[in-house]
Order: sequence, then structure tokens, then C-alpha cells
Amino acid sequence: MNLGIELNSMAEMVNKELKKNLQFGKRSTLYDAMRYLIFAGGKRLRPIIAMHACAAVGGKKEKALPLALALELVHSFTLIHDDIMDRDKFRRNIKTTHIVFGEATAINAGDALFARAFETLVELETAPKLKNELTAEFSKTIRKIAEGQQMDIEFEKRDIVTEKEYLEMIEKKTSALIEMAAKGGALVGNGTKKEIASLANYGKYLGLGFQIWDDFLGIAGDPKKTGKPVGNDLRRGKKTLIVVCGLNKAKGAYRKFLCSVLGNEDASEKEIRNAVQILDKINSTGYARDKAISYAQRAKYNLKYLQKSESREVLEMLADYSVGRDK
Amino acid sequence: MNLGIELNSMAEMVNKELKKNLQFGKRSTLYDAMRYLIFAGGKRLRPIIAMHACAAVGGKKEKALPLALALELVHSFTLIHDDIMDRDKFRRNIKTTHIVFGEATAINAGDALFARAFETLVELETAPKLKNELTAEFSKTIRKIAEGQQMDIEFEKRDIVTEKEYLEMIEKKTSALIEMAAKGGALVGNGTKKEIASLANYGKYLGLGFQIWDDFLGIAGDPKKTGKPVGNDLRRGKKTLIVVCGLNKAKGAYRKFLCSVLGNEDASEKEIRNAVQILDKINSTGYARDKAISYAQRAKYNLKYLQKSESREVLEMLADYSVGRDK
Repeated sequence: MNLGIELNSMAEMVNKELKKNLQFGKRSTLYDAMRYLIFAGGKRLRPIIAMHACAAVGGKKEKALPLALALELVHSFTLIHDDIMDRDKFRRNIKTTHIVFGEATAINAGDALFARAFETLVELETAPKLKNELTAEFSKTIRKIAEGQQMDIEFEKRDIVTEKEYLEMIEKKTSALIEMAAKGGALVGNGTKKEIASLANYGKYLGLGFQIWDDFLGIAGDPKKTGKPVGNDLRRGKKTLIVVCGLNKAKGAYRKFLCSVLGNEDASEKEIRNAVQILDKINSTGYARDKAISYAQRAKYNLKYLQKSESREVLEMLADYSVGRDK
Repeated sequence: MNLGIELNSMAEMVNKELKKNLQFGKRSTLYDAMRYLIFAGGKRLRPIIAMHACAAVGGKKEKALPLALALELVHSFTLIHDDIMDRDKFRRNIKTTHIVFGEATAINAGDALFARAFETLVELETAPKLKNELTAEFSKTIRKIAEGQQMDIEFEKRDIVTEKEYLEMIEKKTSALIEMAAKGGALVGNGTKKEIASLANYGKYLGLGFQIWDDFLGIAGDPKKTGKPVGNDLRRGKKTLIVVCGLNKAKGAYRKFLCSVLGNEDASEKEIRNAVQILDKINSTGYARDKAISYAQRAKYNLKYLQKSESREVLEMLADYSVGRDK
């Protein structure tokens, strides 16, 4: 099993289906805006997890396709709206949707993708009752994402955020949808209660590890690969785990300097470099990296309740990949 | 049957249920923002139509309650997002959500209400299959609303909009959700195919009449009652039916003057008054008023396929009310 080949071939298949899903017959700026970001890249992590979770409990991968597409549509809608809220100008190395299409159209395109996700979800060919259950879980998940996004917005304005608060925020903002992917796939595949709970946990911990690794890449990654300038998060005052931990640990001059850079949009390249060095020195960066890896381990650990299969193997490798990737 | 009393008592009941629905246990700015507009007023037209449509085909009104609440939640989410897109500062005589809570929180609150609507919809106690059908219709309706909103945004920038285009826009932006209310109520009440189709048509035509009457009130209404300054739509360049028709009919100096005022944010009170007079003189205002009334008649006409009942009577009176109201 080569994970890279598997991910590419799955992503290609998902892309083909997404193209069909977002084909509406006639031309419209709204449709263009709905398609713009989603076809500019993306790992299709959530669809891939949903389909392999389905297969890992004995279902057919394809049966989870409507769920898989719905997950990606929701993911894309949240990115479009988040970029407006965060005033971000670039994502996936291209201009964000609201920069290209204007804010009104971007808000609207996000809403339309949200609606499209539910249109797609109900295309699942499962027992009607299960479909209702999935709709309920799915909508609850999206409300959770909004709650997490709200915490994220409010953290930026606060001086101190605890690690516990940070973890609650990313669990809602990022983990919830990945948990939905894994759990939803298990539900569609008619997994046992034990299997469903294990895959839900897998998704949750993978999500936590994935997000913390993202934070880590924002400080320690290669901007050419991540598509985000180093220190972007620092200038914006984002409370990533590295920052949360850094503000906890740093004392005296270090602390003073960090506080002068965090949330300072005008911080120079040199100041950012110094702040990154401090965060490294007091081991905040290392702490976050280790934490991400430990969550990925926990994700993997939960898979041991599943029978061995190729899909279980893919999910295991995905957990490692999520905290080893460079973009 | 006194319509006023009936509407008030229904609205009160809906409000009580909405309060419960939007009670999340803990405090959060997000929740405050979700509740802000929805509890600042509103006629609860969509919930009332859904519940009476359910009863008009022999179901219990209360059975449609989750649908009714979901409709109002969606209505509220679209208003919050529309106000951001349109840069509107006031609605229901209070500041709009994004003015009070900031734009990021308002976008997010809209998203959370959207999600909450689906959480609520699946609480319907109907056959699981029917619930899936309703979820599918509901999500399709919301996508339609986004399409209508997009047309509305784009019309503002255009010089000429045909009546046909205008009608397509309001059918999507306003009518679709009212159609969903009436049709959905009939579905929940286990109406016959004929009843469901009749109520769908009722909702569609009522929606068209309702929206055109809204446009009419924007020109001919008392701002103290409508909560919107006269000529707001004109200054903004909104392509209401009155404007669409006015630009079609006006010639020479009239036309020139209208074009100088429409979309001119700096137009004086006097210029607005003159424009209103011209639109009146060339009978655009009267044309729109008559059109609204004729749609309401068509809505009522569709009710004759239902058995006589108190709920049918309420729906009939609602059709008259929708094009007779002064706010």
C-alpha cells in the first residue's frame, strides 16, 4: 500500500464527482464562486476518511460517496466564510473567494455550498432512518464548527488563552468535521456500535493532531509548500497552541518581546524571525509538534478495535501522514 | 375568525418555541447574535403558513412545529446575511446584526442558524422517508434563495432588468421559502398529491404577491410603520417591480430624471419625492400594487382544491392580508 498513490487516486475520484455535483447547467457568477476555491486544490482528507471508514467496517467505499462530497462541500463553505471573517487574502496559493468575487457573492456562495451539502447528503442510499440520523449529526457538527470559529475569533482579542480552551476551540472548529467523516462513514457502512465509537474517536484525535500540526507548519513549515507566509498567525494574533504555550512559558524579556510581536500587523520580518526563535528556544514549538504526534498516535490506537483491512491500513497511514506532512 | 387575533396567538406560540430552540445552556456571543434579530420582531408568516397548511389537509398543526421553526430560523439567517451583503444598517427598527456584533460574528451567527434549522427539521415526527424528502426539498429551497439573492445583487449594477427577470428573482429569493412552508406543511399533514400541489402553488403566488407588496410599501408606505425610509430602495438602485416597470415606461425627461436618482446614494429628499411622484404618474406604482393583488388572488384560488376548514380560511385571509398590510 502506497499512501501517496492511494490519496491521489481517491482525491481524483472525489474531484470528478464534485465536478458533477457542482454542475448546474447554466452559467452564473454564484456557481463560479461556489467552484472557485474547491477546485483550487485541497487534500480531500474528509471524503477519503469517510469512504475508508465505511470500507473499514465492511461497507462499500462508494456507498459513502454522498457523505464524502457533503463533507467537502461543507469544508469549502467554512473556508470561504472564515476567509471573509479573518480578512485573509490568500489560500491554496490563490486569492480568496471574496477577494476575487467580492464579499457579497462570497457569503452567498458559502451559503449555497452549505445548502448543496445537505442536498447531496440525502442522496445516500441507506435506510431512511439512518439518513435522518446522519442529517441530525451533520447539522449539529456544523453548528459546532460555528461555535469553534467564534472562539477562534474571540481568542484573537484576548491576552491569555489556556491550553484547555484552545483544545476545545480546535475540537469544534476542525476536529468535529473529521470526526463526522469517520463516524459517518462507519454509520453508512453499518458498523457495530463499538466500530462506530472507535472511528469517531479516531476522527476526533486525528483532527486535533491535524490542526496542531497545521499550527506547527505555520511557524516551522516552508511557506513555499504551505502557501502561507511564516509568522502570518503571529502577526494576526492567532492563538495557536505554540502561542498559547509560549505565553504560558515565556518570562521577562522573552515574554515582553513576544507580546510586542503577537497581534502586531506591522511586525517586521526580523521581529517575526526573533519571535519564532524564542518560541523554539522555550520549546513551545517542540511541545506543539509532540502533542500533534501524540494525538495521531491516539487516533491510530482507536483503530485496533477494527478488523484488519486495507482501509484500516490507509486510515493508520493517514494518521501518521497528518502529523508528518510538510503542507 | 379574527385574523389579527389568530396571527398574534400563533406568533406568540412560535416565539415561545423559538426561545426554547435557541436556548443553549451556556452564554456565548454567538448565541446572543443568533437570537438578536429573530426576537426583535417578525410576523412569523412562514411558520404560521406551514402549520395551517398542515391542518388544512387534516394534520395536527403542532405536528408541523419543527418545520415551522426551521423555516423561521432559515428566514432569520438569510436576513442576517442579506443585511451584510446589502450593507443595511437597520431592520425591524433596530440596528442590523453585523452593526451590533460585527461582521465576522454576524456571518457566523447566520451559519449557525442555518445549521440549527436542519437540526430542528429532523425533529419532525413523520415517517423517516418523508423526513428525508423534506430535508431534500428544504436544502434545495435554500440554494434557490442564494440564487435569487445573487440575481438581486447583480440587478443593482444593471441598467435594465426585465419584468420576467425580476419575477424569477423574487420567486427564488422570497417565494421559494413560502412555497416550502405551504408545501412542507401539506407533506407533514399527509395531504393528497393534489392538496400538496395546490398548497405549493398557494405559497408560491402568495410569496410573489407578498414581495411585490413589500416593494410597494417601500415607495408608498409610511416609514414609521414599515421601519424603512421611503426611497431607500431607489437610492440603493434596487430593481423592484416599480422601478423595473418605471424604467420601461418612462420616456424623455422623466426617464432622464429617474436614471439620475436611481442608485444615487446622495439623492436629496426632494429628488426622491419627485421620483416617487413620477413613478406614480406613469402608473408604475399602481401597476405593482395591482400585480401584487392579482398574485394574492391566484394564491387564494389554489385553496379551492382543499376541503373547507378553519385553517383554509386562515390561509385565505392571509393571502388578502399579505397585500393589504401597511407594514
